[in-house]
Amino acid sequence: ENYWRRVGDRSTVTIPGWKFISYFSDVGNICWFLEPEFAAAITRLHRLVGNAVTADRHIVVGTGSSQLIQAALYAVVSPDPPPTPVPVVSAAPYYSSYPLIVDLLKSRLYGWGGCAREFQDDGEAFVELVTYPNNPDGAMRKSVVNGSRGILIHDLAYYWPQYVPIVSPADHDVMLFTVSKSTGHAGTRLGWAVVKDPEIARKMTEFIILNTIGVSKDSQHRAAKIIQVICDTHERRSDFRGVDPFFDHSFNSMARRWRQLRNAVEDSNLFTLPEFPRATCTFSGRSFSTQPAFAWVKCEAKNVDNCERFLKQNKILTRSGKHFGESEKYVRISVLPSDQVFEQFVERLPAI
Amino acid sequence: ENYWRRVGDRSTVTIPGWKFISYFSDVGNICWFLEPEFAAAITRLHRLVGNAVTADRHIVVGTGSSQLIQAALYAVVSPDPPPTPVPVVSAAPYYSSYPLIVDLLKSRLYGWGGCAREFQDDGEAFVELVTYPNNPDGAMRKSVVNGSRGILIHDLAYYWPQYVPIVSPADHDVMLFTVSKSTGHAGTRLGWAVVKDPEIARKMTEFIILNTIGVSKDSQHRAAKIIQVICDTHERRSDFRGVDPFFDHSFNSMARRWRQLRNAVEDSNLFTLPEFPRATCTFSGRSFSTQPAFAWVKCEAKNVDNCERFLKQNKILTRSGKHFGESEKYVRISVLPSDQVFEQFVERLPAI
Repeated sequence: ENYWRRVGDRSTVTIPGWKFISYFSDVGNICWFLEPEFAAAITRLHRLVGNAVTADRHIVVGTGSSQLIQAALYAVVSPDPPPTPVPVVSAAPYYSSYPLIVDLLKSRLYGWGGCAREFQDDGEAFVELVTYPNNPDGAMRKSVVNGSRGILIHDLAYYWPQYVPIVSPADHDVMLFTVSKSTGHAGTRLGWAVVKDPEIARKMTEFIILNTIGVSKDSQHRAAKIIQVICDTHERRSDFRGVDPFFDHSFNSMARRWRQLRNAVEDSNLFTLPEFPRATCTFSGRSFSTQPAFAWVKCEAKNVDNCERFLKQNKILTRSGKHFGESEKYVRISVLPSDQVFEQFVERLPAI
Repeated sequence: ENYWRRVGDRSTVTIPGWKFISYFSDVGNICWFLEPEFAAAITRLHRLVGNAVTADRHIVVGTGSSQLIQAALYAVVSPDPPPTPVPVVSAAPYYSSYPLIVDLLKSRLYGWGGCAREFQDDGEAFVELVTYPNNPDGAMRKSVVNGSRGILIHDLAYYWPQYVPIVSPADHDVMLFTVSKSTGHAGTRLGWAVVKDPEIARKMTEFIILNTIGVSKDSQHRAAKIIQVICDTHERRSDFRGVDPFFDHSFNSMARRWRQLRNAVEDSNLFTLPEFPRATCTFSGRSFSTQPAFAWVKCEAKNVDNCERFLKQNKILTRSGKHFGESEKYVRISVLPSDQVFEQFVERLPAI
C-alpha cells in the first residue's frame, strides 16, 4: 500500500459509467471475456521478468487462481464421468486449500488423491498439481509421479523475482498465475492461465462461463494498468524518481523480513526453517536463495508434538502442518502481514 | 450505454493503485468479502423499488448470479454426500443454463432433476429453482412442487420495474439478484443473495471462498456508485436535469421494444407471444403487463416443427425451446440487443 501511494496517480484508473457494460471483451478469442489490455499487460510482464513462455500460448483469465485450478481440472478430465473420479495429487506439504477446492462439490469427474509421493500409479489417468516455489515450504518442485497417464497442472503463483531467483522461462502445458501474489492486489480476484493446447483453453473457458459467465472487466482494466506501471518502473526508470522499480522494492522487503525471521529463529533454539539453494536470478542478476511468502517452521523441541498449539499458547497464530498433509511438528507462518504484526512476531518467537 | 453517457461523470469511479489490495472487506460480517458500500447501495435500491425485504437479512455477494446459484445449492444440500444426489428441478420452460450449471462438475451432492411439474416427490430432499418473472417466458412463477422436504431458491434477476409490475416486496428464504439485469452492467460480473438464515449465508460464503476467494472489490466499488446514482436519479431529480430517472428510462425502452415486437408478430400471422396479466406497479404507479428481457415466441405454422431452424433460414438467430425443456415449436429471442440489430429483427419477422 505504501509503495502504491508513492507511485500515486500514475496507477489510478478512472472508469465512466458507460464502460464495460457488455459480457464480451474479445469475441474473436477463445477466452472471449479476456480484456485485450489485460492480456497485453501480462504478456509484457512475463517478457520483462522472463518467468514464463507466452508466445503461441493461450491466455485464460479467471477469478483468482482458485477458479483456474477448477477450470484446469475440468478441462483435463474427460467431460463424461470416468468410472471412478480421476485422482488429483500433490506432494506434501501441499497448499492446504487444494484438497478443499478439489473435493468442494464431491465431483464424479475428479477427487483428491492425497500426497503424490504415496500415490500408486496403476496406469489410469491422474492429475498432479506441481507448485513452485511451493506453498507452504518454498521448495522448487518437479512432478514426482510422472506416470504415462499423468496430467500436470503447474501452479506458479509465487514464481516471481521477489520470492525466488528466476532461472528460466517456465514452459509447461498449463501454468497458473495470480495478481494477488505478483502485484499484491488480492482484492481484484484475478488470475490467469498460460495454456499450450487450444482445446484445453476452450474447456477452461467453458468452465468459467458456466461458473461465473466470465471475469470482472473492472478488475481486468485496473490490473492491466497496475501491471503496465510495474513494467514502466523497470523500463522507464527516469519517469519514477524516488520510487524504486517494483520488483526491487518487493525483493528488498522480502529480504528484510527473511533476515528478521532467520535472526528470530536462530535466537530461539526451538525452531528451524528450511534452507534453500542459492541461484542467480536471470531477471535481476542477483544471487540469492528463495525468500517465500510463507515460513515453514518446524518445532524441534522433543516435548512439543503440536507446534500450532504450542505457538498459540505463546500468542502466535499459525496454521498446523496437518492441513498441508504433514506432521503437526510443522506450522506455516505468513511473512506478509502488516509491519506491526510482523514486528510483534519476531519479538515473541525468541522469547519463548 | 447512451443513458450512462448522459449521466456523465456522476457515475464515474476513480480507483487509486493503493486501494482494495486486501482480500478482506468487512471482517465482522459473515460474508467478509462484501464491501460495506455495495451492501449499503443494494439495500437502498431495494428500499426505493420495494421489490425485496432486506431488513434482518444477510447479503452475500457473488461473481454474478451463476456463482450464487451454485453457492445456494451447496448451502442448502447437506455437506456430506447424500445417498443419491439431491434433485434440482425447475418448471419448464426454465433458464437453459440451469441444467448445465447444476451438472457442471457431476456433483454427488446434487444433480439436475428436470421439469418440476414432472417431478415425483417421494418425500426425499429436493431443491426447486423458482424464477419470476421467468426466463424465458416472462411468467410470474410460484413453486410447483412444494413438498415437505423441498427447498426453494428464488431467482429474482428480472424482478425490477422495467420488466414487471412490482406487486410487493419479495420475502423468500434465498433470493438471488444480479447487477447485469438491474443496472445492465453485465461486465461487472456481480450478483447478490438476500438470505434469511445466517447458517445458509455462512455456507454460501464458504462456497465462494473455495470457488474464488471472494468477489472483485473493484466491481463492488463501481456497482455501488452506479446503484447510488440510480437511486439519486429518482430521489434527487433536480440534480439530473435532462436525464430521466433510471427506471423510467429503462421502462420506456422496454415498452417501446415490446410495442415494436408485438406489432411485428401481429403482422406476421405465423407466430404468437405470451400474454401477460396487467397489474399496478407499487413502485411507479403505472398499470402495465410484463415486458420481459426475452420474447418466448411460438411458431404456429403447421408445417414448421423446428422454429429455430426456420427462423435461421430467414436470417434470425434465436435459441430453441428444447434448451429450456420445451418443444422446438418455441424459441427465445432477446429483446435487448443493440438498436440496429433489433430494428433488423422487427423488419425481418413480418416479411417471412
